[in-house]
Amino acid sequence: MTLPVSRDDIRAAHERIRPYIRRTPAWRLPDGALGHDGPVSLKLELLQHAGSFKPRGAFNTLLTQRVPEAGVAAASGGNHGAAVAYAASRLGVPARIFVPEISSPAKVEIIRRLGAEVVIQGLRYADALQACAAYIEQTGALSIHAYDALSTIQGQGTVALEWEEEEPGLDTVLVAVGGGGLISGIASWWAGRGVKVVGVEPEGSRALHASLEAGHPVDVAVESIAADSLGARNTGGLVFSIARAAVDHVALVSDAAIREAQRTLWRDWRIASEPGGATALSALLSGAYRPRPGERVGVLLCGGNVELSKLAELLHLPDTWQAGK
Amino acid sequence: MTLPVSRDDIRAAHERIRPYIRRTPAWRLPDGALGHDGPVSLKLELLQHAGSFKPRGAFNTLLTQRVPEAGVAAASGGNHGAAVAYAASRLGVPARIFVPEISSPAKVEIIRRLGAEVVIQGLRYADALQACAAYIEQTGALSIHAYDALSTIQGQGTVALEWEEEEPGLDTVLVAVGGGGLISGIASWWAGRGVKVVGVEPEGSRALHASLEAGHPVDVAVESIAADSLGARNTGGLVFSIARAAVDHVALVSDAAIREAQRTLWRDWRIASEPGGATALSALLSGAYRPRPGERVGVLLCGGNVELSKLAELLHLPDTWQAGK
Repeated sequence: MTLPVSRDDIRAAHERIRPYIRRTPAWRLPDGALGHDGPVSLKLELLQHAGSFKPRGAFNTLLTQRVPEAGVAAASGGNHGAAVAYAASRLGVPARIFVPEISSPAKVEIIRRLGAEVVIQGLRYADALQACAAYIEQTGALSIHAYDALSTIQGQGTVALEWEEEEPGLDTVLVAVGGGGLISGIASWWAGRGVKVVGVEPEGSRALHASLEAGHPVDVAVESIAADSLGARNTGGLVFSIARAAVDHVALVSDAAIREAQRTLWRDWRIASEPGGATALSALLSGAYRPRPGERVGVLLCGGNVELSKLAELLHLPDTWQAGK
Repeated sequence: MTLPVSRDDIRAAHERIRPYIRRTPAWRLPDGALGHDGPVSLKLELLQHAGSFKPRGAFNTLLTQRVPEAGVAAASGGNHGAAVAYAASRLGVPARIFVPEISSPAKVEIIRRLGAEVVIQGLRYADALQACAAYIEQTGALSIHAYDALSTIQGQGTVALEWEEEEPGLDTVLVAVGGGGLISGIASWWAGRGVKVVGVEPEGSRALHASLEAGHPVDVAVESIAADSLGARNTGGLVFSIARAAVDHVALVSDAAIREAQRTLWRDWRIASEPGGATALSALLSGAYRPRPGERVGVLLCGGNVELSKLAELLHLPDTWQAGK
């Protein structure tokens, strides 16, 4: 079976973007860490430029397409916008970013600091997307889709290429899913290679899980602590087709499990993570994904754009509250 | 010249403590990162158990000495206390930790959570040390010194052993200095090997700088944003003798430079660091240490036990304020 994105596509993207991105550490933890009786590899992609994996796709898009005078435009819950702003600024291209009101002030601040123009419009991601589309129609600006586009997926797939070089022999990788661009790239890299790619979605933001169940892309309602980074209502057709072919399954986690993973990451590991960045780990900690003893598990920490004051509050919430939803 | 701690001592400590500590990532950054025209290796030791390098020395001490029924006692500005609490708890030994009032609540909380008994006594580190000494005298508990002891220094030196394996060929390493146990271990490892070991102290907490200038250990006054982890008043004689022989020099940095390094680490790298943990980096960023072009520089991030709400406040202080003090 031929997937729309090949290993060669991802290798080419890797060569293209490597001068601009950080090669983030893959950290092998001792057996027994994180409660798993086997080796765990943490890929610390939250140390990437602009605080998430997203610059990989943004650079790959900007470096493979003709950029018009109007520059680039993107609609984003935040991390994609920050990534496009960063990549555009690095490459000297003007950028306008449309963000929904749900976006965290920390992310909006980052986007502005990187020199992009920010337009805050609508309650949810889909509203910002619509405003962005109208702007592109009017000005001819280059659109960079947050996930459902070949160049984006090829760029995100370079995470897996790096990870395999640093930690060959993984049995399974756990990857958080929002719109699904990241997991599509990763699954394209490992398709047919014996590495099980498992998606992790919040129970309240399960666009990919619902689509795989329905057999076609479907819209879902979004209500989750991780909505600002994982809150896509629909994966789109390209992501769906890759995921159906190459993703093993999608595990669902509660918001409480995500919060607990954020707390564990800070308390025991001194890693400050946003909810979406801790979502993959939450599947391992909560048992939503249960590896067999000795299974070599990779966990991708994909984003760190959290407001520290919010993370501090979360740490001081009583455990009994944590035990509830 | 023979130093009191040899490479073989450090190798033995490494074998002894490796089942209990984390091998932290050494992250090679691209040339140009952090403003330096050459490669930089960040050793992410702030991801260690208990949030700093200190468990290395604590485990090495507990595993080489007979532990009496009263257990262990330590006086600590915080990180050493957390480390002793962690190591004691892992090895099933009772621990009592004496901390000065200056200690951050975050660190005191960590120590308690790890199961140790905490005694808060006196304004400065030296007061807590005195109270601890009295307790040891009375009960026979095992003392674990925070820096000026062979077993502690041997343990801390294992950071350098790991680092050399991961990143051979470093020209220079920058290491924050409080009491000097860490830099003594690191300098012992690299003594006579062509790696320049540079200490970094806050202008307002310069026990090692003052001692090297005086030619013998001297007491200094302590007043710095990093005092809770680097605020030792005197390095002691063992640290002094090793540092005089094997440390190239000590660079001094302002509190403003330390704050700026904390801000840079979070804003551009999504690494949450305590003041002491950002002190080595601040020498590179502020120009207190200026490498030649192409110099292969290692920067040790040694501690992450920061209160997130405080770090958040620091980020929102105006830049003009940063430029002052």
